[in-house]
Amino acid sequence: MLLLGLDPGLRNTGWGVVSAEGNRLRHVANGVIRPPSGDLAVRLLALHEALADIIGRMKPDEAAVEETFVNVNGQSTLKLGQARGVVMLAPALAGVPVTEYPANTVKKALVGFGHASKDQIGHMVRVLLPGVEIGSPDAADALAVAICHAHHAESKRRLEAAR
Amino acid sequence: MLLLGLDPGLRNTGWGVVSAEGNRLRHVANGVIRPPSGDLAVRLLALHEALADIIGRMKPDEAAVEETFVNVNGQSTLKLGQARGVVMLAPALAGVPVTEYPANTVKKALVGFGHASKDQIGHMVRVLLPGVEIGSPDAADALAVAICHAHHAESKRRLEAAR
Repeated sequence: MLLLGLDPGLRNTGWGVVSAEGNRLRHVANGVIRPPSGDLAVRLLALHEALADIIGRMKPDEAAVEETFVNVNGQSTLKLGQARGVVMLAPALAGVPVTEYPANTVKKALVGFGHASKDQIGHMVRVLLPGVEIGSPDAADALAVAICHAHHAESKRRLEAAR
Repeated sequence: MLLLGLDPGLRNTGWGVVSAEGNRLRHVANGVIRPPSGDLAVRLLALHEALADIIGRMKPDEAAVEETFVNVNGQSTLKLGQARGVVMLAPALAGVPVTEYPANTVKKALVGFGHASKDQIGHMVRVLLPGVEIGSPDAADALAVAICHAHHAESKRRLEAAR
């Protein structure tokens, strides 16, 4: 099963694809989308098109996004929201289910506790996906969400099998 | 020229189409999109599909959106941002240029000053588009942005013609 993790942002949207077979995780690809500056609609379109292209090539089975920490700065929150809406729409348009995870759930899944630092997350992503080369912190965060989703999906399957 | 005005929201997205020939405005259609409650990705997809359908049927030449007032509540701002991103993407995907207008510019275009009330805006929309039936305040706001865009587009054309 191919899982797409996404870390939305108007300047940098991180993405990462992980293959999950039972408990086995394998890194497939990761990267960052950087829409050009300019009019908002043009930037959102560039973000959408880059993401639709990645989804078309990677054909993930499921997607996951971290629930966003709301900034004290309203303008930043609005910008992030706009990017996030477009980012969540892309898999939905391709028929790929999208799950949201609270930030603490992602951290717990990776490091074992909910208040891990960015460095700890990045470290655990590298441990869990041996040999992975990560281009940016946003791509590392995207891989972390994909790994979190893999753990949760696997637990859910086992639970259902046990019933 | 057909102009599509949009008033984004996750619960209610108002839309309105106005035909503008020189200074003459005519109402074409208006309505509200109400995505079902449920998972965010599913709601955003429903919003996108309803809007893409309207754009496909109406074939507007240009679209306009009011710049959003940032709420003190971060969660509300994030939700609005998510809807707004998806709303602005739909015309862009269809090749329809999208212009943003500050709220005060919209009010000035309709009422002549920047601090008009919602009621005054609704009243002027009805004056400027005789016979219009408006289903909801969100649709009235969407028509107001479309009218604002018509005024600005006409001024721009005259300025360019005068050069």
